[in-house]
Amino acid sequence: MVHPLRTHIETVCKLTDEEFEYVLSHFTPLKLKKHRLLVREGDWVKHEYFVLKGCLRSYITDADTGKEFTYQFAAENWWISEREAFLKQTAATTAIECVEDCELLGLSFENREKLGREMWKYEHYVAVKTSLGYVALQKRLQLMIMGSTKERFENFVNQYPDLYSRVPKAFIASFLGVSRETISRLYRK
Amino acid sequence: MVHPLRTHIETVCKLTDEEFEYVLSHFTPLKLKKHRLLVREGDWVKHEYFVLKGCLRSYITDADTGKEFTYQFAAENWWISEREAFLKQTAATTAIECVEDCELLGLSFENREKLGREMWKYEHYVAVKTSLGYVALQKRLQLMIMGSTKERFENFVNQYPDLYSRVPKAFIASFLGVSRETISRLYRK
Repeated sequence: MVHPLRTHIETVCKLTDEEFEYVLSHFTPLKLKKHRLLVREGDWVKHEYFVLKGCLRSYITDADTGKEFTYQFAAENWWISEREAFLKQTAATTAIECVEDCELLGLSFENREKLGREMWKYEHYVAVKTSLGYVALQKRLQLMIMGSTKERFENFVNQYPDLYSRVPKAFIASFLGVSRETISRLYRK
Repeated sequence: MVHPLRTHIETVCKLTDEEFEYVLSHFTPLKLKKHRLLVREGDWVKHEYFVLKGCLRSYITDADTGKEFTYQFAAENWWISEREAFLKQTAATTAIECVEDCELLGLSFENREKLGREMWKYEHYVAVKTSLGYVALQKRLQLMIMGSTKERFENFVNQYPDLYSRVPKAFIASFLGVSRETISRLYRK
């Protein structure tokens, strides 16, 4: 079986066996149980992670009310990190929690830079995938600005049918910026 | 005076004079008057643009109501394009309008790919700036999900004090997902 990370990179550019082995040698495997935190608020974030198995959510906690807002999910073949803290090497202002038992591959900031410097293909992969991620986020923002609650919900279910059944509805509600009750009502329809 | 595009690239990595001249030779200058459309819905988008002078907005039109929602601004030293159409080479689903008279530098998709292939520094610049753009967009989304109208407004004014005075308030209102009246009320405070 082709390694999922290789499959993901090869959607952008093909690698030789040697190149992929070299890329992979920079990653560190990590297993975490459901409910464990991958990143805590205030952490220095030294890694970004490729998800091999399981599902995680990034969330931000309102300092006044203590209420949590989920702003990102990541399941198999997605990348996740507290990106601002990772890229700017500052303390995390949001947290990442395992929604299921997870198997991850961690890449340190130094190794990411090293791979990008040494292998044009890796830098290109990062540039292309980040650009596509930017577009996806922009579309989500467009839906937040102009879409109805119903449209946002339907879009989520169509885009991530698998995630919808795996993730507690309260997380999806805050992800979509709608109430828990609205989610239940829309789901029944 | 150092060319603004060079200054922008050099926040990521230094270029020699020859390297910058080579980069610049791939761009095409473009001047557009206020209210002119840079991209129309349905267009094939062949370029991305670096803003030398002026201000533009990207907006999406609600098919049912005809109402416009501004989802992005770009002023001096920002990049703008209908990114989805540009990257995926599909037809534009949103439009870009000049809010002021504009001077732009256009880079075609082919030239962007060529520069990235030939110059590791350019590919690295794209990767780093896109990652930072992703983070900025993520922070904006977090504010849309959890921030109050007041917080969103204050954040915008603090982040883009210059833009606030240059751009019609109706565009800012839809950008923040709040009503025109709310903007006026918050501004008076």
